[in-house]
Amino acid sequence: MIRMQGKIFGVGVGPGDPDLITVKGCNAIQSSHVIAYHQTSKQSSNAFRIAGKWIRDDQMLLPLTYPVTTELSSYSQTYANLIQEFYEQTAQRLKQYLDTGKTICVLAEGDPLFYSSFMYIFDRLKGDYEIEIIPGVSSIFAAAAALKVPLCYRNQKFIVLSAVLSEQELEESLNATDAFAIIKLGRNIAKVKRILAKLTLHSHARYIERASMPNEKIIPLENVNEHCSPYFSMILIPGKSWVAGK
Amino acid sequence: MIRMQGKIFGVGVGPGDPDLITVKGCNAIQSSHVIAYHQTSKQSSNAFRIAGKWIRDDQMLLPLTYPVTTELSSYSQTYANLIQEFYEQTAQRLKQYLDTGKTICVLAEGDPLFYSSFMYIFDRLKGDYEIEIIPGVSSIFAAAAALKVPLCYRNQKFIVLSAVLSEQELEESLNATDAFAIIKLGRNIAKVKRILAKLTLHSHARYIERASMPNEKIIPLENVNEHCSPYFSMILIPGKSWVAGK
Repeated sequence: MIRMQGKIFGVGVGPGDPDLITVKGCNAIQSSHVIAYHQTSKQSSNAFRIAGKWIRDDQMLLPLTYPVTTELSSYSQTYANLIQEFYEQTAQRLKQYLDTGKTICVLAEGDPLFYSSFMYIFDRLKGDYEIEIIPGVSSIFAAAAALKVPLCYRNQKFIVLSAVLSEQELEESLNATDAFAIIKLGRNIAKVKRILAKLTLHSHARYIERASMPNEKIIPLENVNEHCSPYFSMILIPGKSWVAGK
Repeated sequence: MIRMQGKIFGVGVGPGDPDLITVKGCNAIQSSHVIAYHQTSKQSSNAFRIAGKWIRDDQMLLPLTYPVTTELSSYSQTYANLIQEFYEQTAQRLKQYLDTGKTICVLAEGDPLFYSSFMYIFDRLKGDYEIEIIPGVSSIFAAAAALKVPLCYRNQKFIVLSAVLSEQELEESLNATDAFAIIKLGRNIAKVKRILAKLTLHSHARYIERASMPNEKIIPLENVNEHCSPYFSMILIPGKSWVAGK
């Protein structure tokens, strides 16, 4: 019976520009029976929009709709229960296709193993099914490319920080590293700006929204709206340029 | 005269598998007159090997050969002077093509703005020429994909550390973060193994050589040769799996 089992591809579709998907990712999409992707009830899937250029009309689409988005705090027990149940159901849905020999491609924005919802599917199915991961371009590198800032030189330390972390934790990490990406800015943008000013890092910080997407926007940090940044926004603080011999 | 000037593409060719280049990277390669890439006098260019599949016979090749590799410590003044002079000469060579209207594609392993030699070209030409950066898949994500380990969940901190750093610096960073990639292992592998054992992180650490290349090798950390790891080796320590509601 093992031979009948389908396979899962976890494909990183990259940061936004459909041409920033890898050739291997394209091939995996086109060789799959089913294309699965996460979306919310309010918003269509960004990963699906990115990969759309490479999906054929005869392929089966399997949207996976989150039961909840920002109505509940992601730290509440209600949220945890709902999302836990959602991932269990998602795994069951995928199993039905896999057990009839279908190949499923799960689309992930950026890279599938880097802060991605695909990891929750992976964690539930990894023991029982063949899973191939196809890495993708992280939005961090798309941001650096658009801002035209070399991120880190030689032996510099590079850290990715979520703006959701406490003021103290952010400050400690920012103090001990050479180069940074700060993600998940959202409603934490005012806090992050305050910390960067305190550490006199604000003049090095570069802010960008929706890197590599059609509505990409680079804004000087001091002009960024302090109430809320969009989901696809990021601050980069590049490492100090290395000049040999100096 | 401005209209006559050529343009530079900095293209991330990805971690090793030629199909892990982006569609956009392929297009940039194929639309360029000149293909430039770094190599050493002892070893042909890995970036060129990766991109070879996408380069046409009628394109001009411009190898940029480092004057020095591992004979000199990269902290010596002699090394610094030689490498500084090399980058200056490289910039001059590229200018000659750019000033006659040629488009140059500079190949970079992984991503062009992340620990890449392309950054030294970028820093020297950015004011005077049009440069477009095309981001690439970092070897870190290829390593995670091959090892099949989700790297970081939700608000976990992720750090990239060079094994060249001091024992104390490595220890402090490893103590304060959730998920790690340790690069540039080389002759520092014994030191890194010692620190990971001391912090009881060794059982979580995963070691890989040449992720996504034909000779990719996954080795249990305890079996890794302590004298020297190859240039394209890496240790990943993934963040703790997040299980909602627990």
